[in-house]
Amino acid sequence: MEAFDLDFLFHPKSIAIAGVKDANATFNTGLMFLKALTGFGYPGRLYPLNPKGGEVMGLKIYKTLKEIPGPVDYVISAVPSRNTPELVADAAAKGVKAIHFFTSGFGEIENIEGKKLQGEILRIARRGGIRIIGPNCLGLYCPAGGLSFNPHASKESGPVGMISQSGGNASHSIAEGNARGVRFSKVISMGNGADLNESDYLEYLTHDPDTRIITAYIEGIKDGPRFLNAVKAAARIKPVIIYKVGASEAGAEAAVSHTTALAGANEVWEGLLRQVGAIQVHSIEEMIDMVVTFLHMAPPAGKNTVIVGIGGGASVILADEFSQAGLSLPKFSKKSRQKLIGHFSSEAGRIFKNPVDMNNLESPEAFADTIKTIEAEDNVNLLVLHIAFDHFGLVNDEDKELMVGVYQWLILDLKNKTNKPMAVILHSFASDKSKKMASAMRDSFTKEGFAVFLSIRSAAVALNKYIQYQQWLKADARGRNHPGNK
Amino acid sequence: MEAFDLDFLFHPKSIAIAGVKDANATFNTGLMFLKALTGFGYPGRLYPLNPKGGEVMGLKIYKTLKEIPGPVDYVISAVPSRNTPELVADAAAKGVKAIHFFTSGFGEIENIEGKKLQGEILRIARRGGIRIIGPNCLGLYCPAGGLSFNPHASKESGPVGMISQSGGNASHSIAEGNARGVRFSKVISMGNGADLNESDYLEYLTHDPDTRIITAYIEGIKDGPRFLNAVKAAARIKPVIIYKVGASEAGAEAAVSHTTALAGANEVWEGLLRQVGAIQVHSIEEMIDMVVTFLHMAPPAGKNTVIVGIGGGASVILADEFSQAGLSLPKFSKKSRQKLIGHFSSEAGRIFKNPVDMNNLESPEAFADTIKTIEAEDNVNLLVLHIAFDHFGLVNDEDKELMVGVYQWLILDLKNKTNKPMAVILHSFASDKSKKMASAMRDSFTKEGFAVFLSIRSAAVALNKYIQYQQWLKADARGRNHPGNK
Repeated sequence: MEAFDLDFLFHPKSIAIAGVKDANATFNTGLMFLKALTGFGYPGRLYPLNPKGGEVMGLKIYKTLKEIPGPVDYVISAVPSRNTPELVADAAAKGVKAIHFFTSGFGEIENIEGKKLQGEILRIARRGGIRIIGPNCLGLYCPAGGLSFNPHASKESGPVGMISQSGGNASHSIAEGNARGVRFSKVISMGNGADLNESDYLEYLTHDPDTRIITAYIEGIKDGPRFLNAVKAAARIKPVIIYKVGASEAGAEAAVSHTTALAGANEVWEGLLRQVGAIQVHSIEEMIDMVVTFLHMAPPAGKNTVIVGIGGGASVILADEFSQAGLSLPKFSKKSRQKLIGHFSSEAGRIFKNPVDMNNLESPEAFADTIKTIEAEDNVNLLVLHIAFDHFGLVNDEDKELMVGVYQWLILDLKNKTNKPMAVILHSFASDKSKKMASAMRDSFTKEGFAVFLSIRSAAVALNKYIQYQQWLKADARGRNHPGNK
Repeated sequence: MEAFDLDFLFHPKSIAIAGVKDANATFNTGLMFLKALTGFGYPGRLYPLNPKGGEVMGLKIYKTLKEIPGPVDYVISAVPSRNTPELVADAAAKGVKAIHFFTSGFGEIENIEGKKLQGEILRIARRGGIRIIGPNCLGLYCPAGGLSFNPHASKESGPVGMISQSGGNASHSIAEGNARGVRFSKVISMGNGADLNESDYLEYLTHDPDTRIITAYIEGIKDGPRFLNAVKAAARIKPVIIYKVGASEAGAEAAVSHTTALAGANEVWEGLLRQVGAIQVHSIEEMIDMVVTFLHMAPPAGKNTVIVGIGGGASVILADEFSQAGLSLPKFSKKSRQKLIGHFSSEAGRIFKNPVDMNNLESPEAFADTIKTIEAEDNVNLLVLHIAFDHFGLVNDEDKELMVGVYQWLILDLKNKTNKPMAVILHSFASDKSKKMASAMRDSFTKEGFAVFLSIRSAAVALNKYIQYQQWLKADARGRNHPGNK
């Protein structure tokens, strides 16, 4: 079996959940897993387990694994940590292939007993040929396998895989992604990674045909060189987006207590990850920004960006943020500028530089002609359209809705008219009304396959990193083809 | 008249709006101003003006200023720029005190005629004793005077003054502030600042008793030394929060075309503004974060922060972001750690370091005891409570609502029980349901006088800048009291 052949984890035919208490108990996490799987439509057999027996949700609660009539592929443990060695031994006898330990109280706690216990279950599992997910984690989300630890997650599969050393951040990533039209192949909340660790999962996702984009929330790395090699191998065939935390002293302290992760100095990891082609992000939201970019945009051939929209103040901010992120805003030729001015009735209130501020949508023709003139410029690699919502001071809600509606239609229509890589920024929506408009517009642009960003800065940062990754790919290919490296 | 005696601008008894077209015209900005003022409940007399005459919204449209029977204090110009010299001359004859030019097409356009025109209206205005707001701006928002350029802005007055070289960003700031419970004394959209400029307004707001916090969106500064002195004088008596843009080459280009502002290199301005005590921010959202901090939090005596909440992954991110922003997360003594562990039934799944991860709300007592133990620690300057919404993977919406509701209640109750400066972070809400919960919670915490932040990073950045400002105040006072400076 290859190290990365972990597909069996995601398609168990039967699952036993150990530690399901009866419906009246508090902190009944066993029952929560049962509910999540049932609600998610898990197609296999589900067996709740508890030494007390009984019944829950119309299912018999078995007292032991042995008592279960058929085979059991997979076990979810929500029992107290002291009971886990017995559970693993029983699982080995039953022929279980994998156990996910939601159970915590192992290597991550201060008490030395926790570390001993982690060693013990690992030994029993290895002897019995059982792989362990966790301990101290939420486990697996895989729509194709009917697995979920999250009752709210989309049942639709998609091309994004995720490895997370935090269950909370895995859940947040799913919510953030789903809200922006992103669907996942597999999300792995891996906790302490006592057996299967971040490198195992990364190698698996690298070879997983259902995963086109890999994301990872990483607190610390068990085997640095192996992980870096795995990232490099993955980055050559699919993007690897990494949110590495635990960089500060306090963060590293928290990471050890959270999932036993040995965190390291920011600069060191940033440098190493950059060398191996990882796309590094600094929040879950930014991770999803990067995913959206890869999903919906053709790679620009360079950093030259032209920005078009409405709003003078917004244009200044756009220019600053895009420049600071590392993108270039080429100046128009004098001839093009005159041509642009000519598309409108007046220069007053408008800016015919880059960014272009149209001030208002004088006419669909003025907009179409503006885009045509820009496309005809040499060396424009990327077209960015932006819509500000709370910038229209004077305009009442009804007129604003009409105006941004027309603008939205014009941008949607561009999709068939331009071959330039294109992105849309929806920004500055604070009022309830504006938020609602922006959400609806985000959904409709996303549905039409646009890369949509929800702030100026997040767009600038993601677009620049997207282009940097293309540059890494080229440099890496050149390096490999260099005669000296043959 | 002192330079800063601009109070008359905000309380005109009568306003004429030049360039109100009849109701069927497109781009009828004159009518939009009339509607905004009427809708806002402006208490004085309103006179629409248009050489064609007629009637609009039940009001007679006067053909000239002269024709208006009573006195006119203030004029809003929405006429084409070529008609503005005549308008100013008429206004001078009528005894108008101030004209706000929404009209653009002056110094900010490429065409040299615009610059000439700006000089011309300025000369006529000065001769006639008229002050000019703008040109190329939205003008004034002042709830106490019944003035608004924004039909959505709150009618309630508050302690925050704003100077903005962009009407769009002024509007966005009002929306962002209003959504977070912030109310304004005066918001000045100043455009090109041909007559009254950023320094005039700043000196005015410094001496304005209705303004306790000054904010400014600045693209460029006309008289650097005067402005810096004005900031320093202001910062000594009230916070001055500045969002300075136009720092990049492209941004500076856009700023010139937007409002004629001469922008300058980032580092230079950042350094100068830091020296004079300005609190510098890098987005409108961050500006409002700072305002919220000043409004609702007592100044911490130092940077030592303790963070408490639910979520291991969130705790690692909190530790990183707070450390990177410049705050300190002191470690607990061994004794305190043991005491903290003792408040809960088990160490498993929890982190008893700083940040504290309670994992779940075992009991109100466990939470109360945790806070008491932390407060008893030496050298804790600041208490931060955080609530993550999409982190609770397993929990269904109903239980989540209940859980965060209890947690909210416990935090609200703390207000009467602790003297420590305190802040609340609501974060990680992406799903529609979570967004709704977070918005409702933001409103209720705000109503009870809490400083509420909507992301981990924004809280860390704002809290650190708040403390830096207190340090500047102390250093500045020491400098002034130094015998060498007597």
